[in-house]
Amino acid sequence: MKQQILNIETKGRGTYEISNDIQSMIDKSTINSGLCHLFLQHTSASLILCENADATVRTDLENFMARIAPDGDPAYQHDMEGPDDMPAHIRTILTQNSLTIPIHNGRCALGTWQGIYLWEHRTMKHKRKLIITLQEN
Amino acid sequence: MKQQILNIETKGRGTYEISNDIQSMIDKSTINSGLCHLFLQHTSASLILCENADATVRTDLENFMARIAPDGDPAYQHDMEGPDDMPAHIRTILTQNSLTIPIHNGRCALGTWQGIYLWEHRTMKHKRKLIITLQEN
Amino acid sequence: MKQQILNIETKGRGTYEISNDIQSMIDKSTINSGLCHLFLQHTSASLILCENADATVRTDLENFMARIAPDGDPAYQHDMEGPDDMPAHIRTILTQNSLTIPIHNGRCALGTWQGIYLWEHRTMKHKRKLIITLQEN
Repeated sequence: MKQQILNIETKGRGTYEISNDIQSMIDKSTINSGLCHLFLQHTSASLILCENADATVRTDLENFMARIAPDGDPAYQHDMEGPDDMPAHIRTILTQNSLTIPIHNGRCALGTWQGIYLWEHRTMKHKRKLIITLQEN
Repeated sequence: MKQQILNIETKGRGTYEISNDIQSMIDKSTINSGLCHLFLQHTSASLILCENADATVRTDLENFMARIAPDGDPAYQHDMEGPDDMPAHIRTILTQNSLTIPIHNGRCALGTWQGIYLWEHRTMKHKRKLIITLQEN
Repeated sequence: MKQQILNIETKGRGTYEISNDIQSMIDKSTINSGLCHLFLQHTSASLILCENADATVRTDLENFMARIAPDGDPAYQHDMEGPDDMPAHIRTILTQNSLTIPIHNGRCALGTWQGIYLWEHRTMKHKRKLIITLQEN
């Protein structure tokens, strides 16, 4: 089992593909078969596996979230950290803080159309910390 | 650690219980205690743990998803693959691509009312690939 | 790998922080580096990682869920177990039954603002069973 930290700087709300960063860590580990666990240490950003072919999928996901958890909803009691903070917590709860993906033949065994994305839910840029744990078969 | 692939053919949108298939793989592995990891290599189908007693629970889940992410919503920019494609991505993001379940006394340690379901979100039939990784204690 | 059961009695709908219980189990295990897996054996309660500083975040999460999956919605077919039962299944599906968290330097490697919560979705009190599996590096 190998544990490492990946620091990711985001430029504000949006999705950031990290598939290549994860594959690169698997390459360096020389693990051929096992499991790759990703853990994001935050409550206003999350991890998703999403279609990596057409970027409008991610635009539509943003619009979906904006519709069900709008910024600045007057119903929110938690509003001291800005109109985008409580929606960021909701979006995180509805998606994932961690992902576990098989490693098969030295590859992160994603499906043809799957990409790993960090989804920043705050409008301002942030520094995010991801812990990667690799387990060998 | 043992890794296998389970191919599942769906008949279109709906839930398909796979608890018995998973238990059967655990039986063959002869693992008594450990973890069972399931990974679905798709972005328009997902995995859920759901009540296995009354089928109307799953009907209501379908209706819930149809209400919050309707097929053919004119707001979707990603509409080239059919009116059910973008909703399928949203439903997948809101549920799970992977599940980790303890193995205890040779059994997949589900609660009394928990079943493992593959949830097909596309209306047409599809071939889905599930990677099962079993870890021994 | 060590597997234990934690029994948790809830007083009805709401969030219950269990971070200290989990850390205490890691302490007893003397595991310095590895993974901690939590699995809740239920379909009407779930696990979330949520901001632990301001309790109104969790109030707002309750209100969000009450808005998108209201109790007693006449659209539900599954209503024999009470008006809060089907919404409890929906809330569980939208969040998580299991969490995997890294163990680093003998600590459950949560971010500064992350707490582990059991989220009871039924209005009545319940006894909930959580299986904890600790894996050593």
